[in-house]
Amino acid sequence: MALTAPPWTAVVLTLFPEMFPGPLGLSLAGQALKAGVWALETVDIRTFARDKHHSVDDAPYGGGPGMVLRPDVVNAAIGDLRALAPELPLVHLTPRGRRLDQSQVQALASGPGVALLCGRYEGIDERVLDAWQPDEISLGDFVLSGGEPAAIALIDACIRLLPGVVGAEQSLHEESFEHGLLEYPQYTRPRVWQDREVPEILLSGHHARIEAWRRAEAEAMTRARRPDLWSAYLRRPRCAAEAVAAPTDDE
Amino acid sequence: MALTAPPWTAVVLTLFPEMFPGPLGLSLAGQALKAGVWALETVDIRTFARDKHHSVDDAPYGGGPGMVLRPDVVNAAIGDLRALAPELPLVHLTPRGRRLDQSQVQALASGPGVALLCGRYEGIDERVLDAWQPDEISLGDFVLSGGEPAAIALIDACIRLLPGVVGAEQSLHEESFEHGLLEYPQYTRPRVWQDREVPEILLSGHHARIEAWRRAEAEAMTRARRPDLWSAYLRRPRCAAEAVAAPTDDE
Repeated sequence: MALTAPPWTAVVLTLFPEMFPGPLGLSLAGQALKAGVWALETVDIRTFARDKHHSVDDAPYGGGPGMVLRPDVVNAAIGDLRALAPELPLVHLTPRGRRLDQSQVQALASGPGVALLCGRYEGIDERVLDAWQPDEISLGDFVLSGGEPAAIALIDACIRLLPGVVGAEQSLHEESFEHGLLEYPQYTRPRVWQDREVPEILLSGHHARIEAWRRAEAEAMTRARRPDLWSAYLRRPRCAAEAVAAPTDDE
Repeated sequence: MALTAPPWTAVVLTLFPEMFPGPLGLSLAGQALKAGVWALETVDIRTFARDKHHSVDDAPYGGGPGMVLRPDVVNAAIGDLRALAPELPLVHLTPRGRRLDQSQVQALASGPGVALLCGRYEGIDERVLDAWQPDEISLGDFVLSGGEPAAIALIDACIRLLPGVVGAEQSLHEESFEHGLLEYPQYTRPRVWQDREVPEILLSGHHARIEAWRRAEAEAMTRARRPDLWSAYLRRPRCAAEAVAAPTDDE
């Protein structure tokens, strides 16, 4: 793994920098962080408060509960980030954004990194978002207490795609969503567990038949659970190799 | 807030118990944890390994990269959980699950808690999942290094709905997805920032007109960004109050 280029870098703009690296400091992501495959910075939004109370938020105009992050404070934090890391795409994590999917993860992982603006409370004053026009991404159709848990998930998803992070890179090409399908079921030792046997085909050694079985299982799972993905899968353009491949006994 | 009932409880079955509470120990979730509004337990799957190498995984039958969690080890961990907390719904976090949405979050938050089974590597032997039939939930159409970041996001989303956690409970009823709409834009002080003014309607004091403006903004945002949510919103059953409500000056 060449480390001459600057590592993939995540910068998180947050009111809670102490949440990072958190789980990203352990396991796969943590090992890669220690190895210098990626780098993590936080920008503490609170340090850009200008009044003596260090206030970062205020009541919403027009009334309603909760507090809204001030445009001047968030603007100063983004300005600081832009001086530090002008090349990173700026992403605002918000439930109104596009729902994160694996193709977005791949696009971000293949770039220089990402700067993640995390809202809290009732969100961020709209004018500072108008001014900076960040890409808006949502983890899904649910509401978090802030952008930080979404930032952790997004960064985790990116890191495992960085060169050298997952030992067997092939495994990245056989997993959920890579072919537009959910993943096939997996089995390991013991061969018989509580009277339940591993499907015989997996013990056969016929690689092409195993691959065909796994593909059929993945297709059946996708058809049953995710009609939306299944429709998209049926409409996908097929590459020539896929169209002509037929199961053969290669062993 | 009455605390006579046992608190809402999250139990996480994981190979990385040291990832918890992590970000859940801070901010809103952390304060609620310290206050006893919710409780967090981890079950360390590794402690259920039975061989001298403490191995929890093995190569997949049928070949392929990566490792699969053994059924006997995961079964012992779930058995331990079931003895500890028989009443909690068991959820397996996996990209092949139903995508988490706010209605599932509400259902889980209104129950006794949740037990979250986190996979790592290439997943969990299918037989132990067949045996326990956990509910399968996905954070979204992307792949994480394991279930743990998804567990953190799911727990965070639930906790903010627990009674007493978000100070102004009304704010929960005016946010994204509560009405099937994305959230309207928010503004706070200063009233003029970098020549950008807060929309005048929000300074008017006409609560009904402000509410109508916010609803229109939320509708426009949803229609532009999320045709799927917009279609569902147009088809929703309307309550009588909503059908007859018209903007009036109530101030």
